[in-house]
Amino acid sequence: MGKKRICTKKKGTKAERELFHLFWDNGWGCARVAGSGSSKRPSTDLVAGNGSRVLALECKAIKTDKKYFDEDSIQQMLTFSSTFGAEPWIAVRFDNIGWFFVPVENLKESKGKSSFVSLDFARKKGKTFEELIGRFEQIKLNEDF
Amino acid sequence: MGKKRICTKKKGTKAERELFHLFWDNGWGCARVAGSGSSKRPSTDLVAGNGSRVLALECKAIKTDKKYFDEDSIQQMLTFSSTFGAEPWIAVRFDNIGWFFVPVENLKESKGKSSFVSLDFARKKGKTFEELIGRFEQIKLNEDF
Repeated sequence: MGKKRICTKKKGTKAERELFHLFWDNGWGCARVAGSGSSKRPSTDLVAGNGSRVLALECKAIKTDKKYFDEDSIQQMLTFSSTFGAEPWIAVRFDNIGWFFVPVENLKESKGKSSFVSLDFARKKGKTFEELIGRFEQIKLNEDF
Repeated sequence: MGKKRICTKKKGTKAERELFHLFWDNGWGCARVAGSGSSKRPSTDLVAGNGSRVLALECKAIKTDKKYFDEDSIQQMLTFSSTFGAEPWIAVRFDNIGWFFVPVENLKESKGKSSFVSLDFARKKGKTFEELIGRFEQIKLNEDF
């Protein structure tokens, strides 16, 4: 159990670093936030900016097709974003598929459970990295996908 | 020598945390940047925002009246700031006196040495925390101080 948690944390950190470099490689500045999750102040995983926009991102890497988020971490990143002046985004990396970005307010809610992002939901409502940074907007051919 | 370096680093981290909380206590969002100084990407110590401004801050705590900055760390934070879209500031905390904030382009240069901030220079050209965040602007009674 302990080993599994360490592996999940390592995987999350690896994904976070991947996204960090992706921003820099595309002309954005990006910073990994120290002590995310351990400080008593509101926090987030990454902050990225390009001179006209600032994004706060909560990152998750998963191999299954669904990821739950606890309300506390969501609330923390929303408070961080509104105080700092950043757009709040959930960044989810699905194994062998890649990154999807979902605005926090679009997180799907399930009865009696926390908010979650599923692969289907991410494909329908989420953005690719290129869409997130405004490189191009993908036309959704089938909104009911 | 090794011990001195560790102490200086600890002191720097303590000052950085103090400034981090100062921003939050004054209604700004602030993030400590992870891996500052160890990543191959441009970096800075703190990033702070309030919805209309974003600041990048390189922090130093000193007990003497002068602090030198190596060109590499200055160049890194300038690249970070211009890519991210942040104002680049040097934050210097003088023992028993407090914080002063100097825009990077105002760093004093000495012949054959790196840029530096002295206490006299910080008092004359630097801003207090309240001035930095725009709470009030201090009138300099003696520009030649």
